[in-house]
Amino acid sequence: MTAPARVVSGMRPTGALHLGHYHGVLKTWLNLQQEHDCLFFVADWHALTQEDQRLGEGAVYDMVVDWLAAGIDPQRATLFIQSRMPEHAELFTLLSLWTPLSWLERVPGFREVADQHPSFGRLGYPLLQAADILAYKADWVPVGQDQAAHLELCRELARRFNHRAERTVFPLPQAVLSDAPRLPGLDGQKMSKSAGNTIAMREDPASTRTKVLRMPTDPQRVHRQDPGDPERCPVWPLHQVTTPPAQQADLAQACRSAKVGCVDCKEALLEGLLPQQAIWRERAESHLAAPKQVHWLVEVGTERARALARKTLREVRDCMGLTA
Amino acid sequence: MTAPARVVSGMRPTGALHLGHYHGVLKTWLNLQQEHDCLFFVADWHALTQEDQRLGEGAVYDMVVDWLAAGIDPQRATLFIQSRMPEHAELFTLLSLWTPLSWLERVPGFREVADQHPSFGRLGYPLLQAADILAYKADWVPVGQDQAAHLELCRELARRFNHRAERTVFPLPQAVLSDAPRLPGLDGQKMSKSAGNTIAMREDPASTRTKVLRMPTDPQRVHRQDPGDPERCPVWPLHQVTTPPAQQADLAQACRSAKVGCVDCKEALLEGLLPQQAIWRERAESHLAAPKQVHWLVEVGTERARALARKTLREVRDCMGLTA
Repeated sequence: MTAPARVVSGMRPTGALHLGHYHGVLKTWLNLQQEHDCLFFVADWHALTQEDQRLGEGAVYDMVVDWLAAGIDPQRATLFIQSRMPEHAELFTLLSLWTPLSWLERVPGFREVADQHPSFGRLGYPLLQAADILAYKADWVPVGQDQAAHLELCRELARRFNHRAERTVFPLPQAVLSDAPRLPGLDGQKMSKSAGNTIAMREDPASTRTKVLRMPTDPQRVHRQDPGDPERCPVWPLHQVTTPPAQQADLAQACRSAKVGCVDCKEALLEGLLPQQAIWRERAESHLAAPKQVHWLVEVGTERARALARKTLREVRDCMGLTA
Repeated sequence: MTAPARVVSGMRPTGALHLGHYHGVLKTWLNLQQEHDCLFFVADWHALTQEDQRLGEGAVYDMVVDWLAAGIDPQRATLFIQSRMPEHAELFTLLSLWTPLSWLERVPGFREVADQHPSFGRLGYPLLQAADILAYKADWVPVGQDQAAHLELCRELARRFNHRAERTVFPLPQAVLSDAPRLPGLDGQKMSKSAGNTIAMREDPASTRTKVLRMPTDPQRVHRQDPGDPERCPVWPLHQVTTPPAQQADLAQACRSAKVGCVDCKEALLEGLLPQQAIWRERAESHLAAPKQVHWLVEVGTERARALARKTLREVRDCMGLTA
């Protein structure tokens, strides 16, 4: 029996998770945790790398609660916090010695910020990501399209390390690409907290209802009797991830033939969305009522992750002659 | 009663220490350990930063033995090994987030290697040095002239951190400048292992004698009866650090008046040098005979250093909002 493949993935704690996070990342995690050895971590250092700002009070554990609310199962997945793992920093430091500066300077994401006075940590961000992944000898890494170049760099680093060490210390991690298109925000633009166009996973029903009812719809459907086109409607992507497929087909048909108005169509969405959010809120509440338990399961996850990372670090130190 | 000032200093393990190390660095350490709280560490990560190569087997503990041979007293000074301290890597990683890339790009030592395909770690080398120092909130740092720019960067980083944290987390470390001129090698050039012009601290007497007797002297003193000039003689700097001052004055006078020949002058040097080396060898032998004891005292030093560094790291994490 071979060991299950290992998956490593992190998420930056930038505030309450929203539907974009759920459908873009968490659903992938939920699938992966069924069959793989998953390590999911709160990337709090990365939040500082990227945004040059402080973390919100409680942001870290609040995100863990969002994960649990979504159905991430600490019996299946190992949950931990990046900043509790000096091993990531040590591997980052060690890999930095064997990483050509030019490799980092030409990472696409960095070139875009190069003239905005980036920090040294910003330049090293993809290297710290590689350390996050390689510390656990991950086989699979879920990545968005914008992170594909980072994973390629990580593979390059693993290859280079194995070559210099003259043995396979690191498997080459492979991308788990999500087939879900990115969920747009309330205004049809990219969903993001800073754009103020999100629906939080745990948003209360009244607020969710107000937000949905205020959403613009197909701009070419001016009157109730005009036929609409779901492909032009910002509400449609929400139906696609929320409403059962048969009902979706009916609604699309009814929209195109002007048999359903936009308000009724939105009510149909809310019929699916509100119960889903109710489940998330309910699960979250039970965890929020027992914060020590959440801390404890992160503690257990951290200890398991640490044992794995330490083993890798011993090997890396040995390869580099750091045998003290 | 105020706490004694703290001194932090590291040395890269590049092989057997030689007279240049003793007179350039270790004598300063010996003075400092009398009155200050000294932390001296083996900078094995830095050896990799600088030279892009592996460490020699046993290089780390062999250097500790050289320190002990020189008279470094583990009862007074805390001795430890950089690569055993993930806390340095963590502080390096955290500081990297608040360090403008441009500050590192314009460090003089980096500009010299910038077109030689440096590693990311090479660019970060002065930042890792700053982490080495700041982890212990050092008050004083012995620096050579070539490291003055690095200490200035470290002070800049401390200032910036204190400013952003809105409290004085780090005192600004000050330079302990050595007044000893750099000891030249056997050939009058810079003493360095790679130039093959060194006398090791623990060199055996026959080898030391041969090396000294083969040294060139004042090139303008062609014949025994020609008057010489100590200022032009590569042997003279060795006298200056080895021979008692009164005897130095006599020898200089005798050289200038051709009353002493170069061979006799060298024998006078060996009279001082060989007994000094004999003491170093003797001390080293007792430690080499009890390697476990050396490991143990490094272990004790590492644990003390770790307690100090962890305290600093807690404070730093707190300032950055990493409160998990």
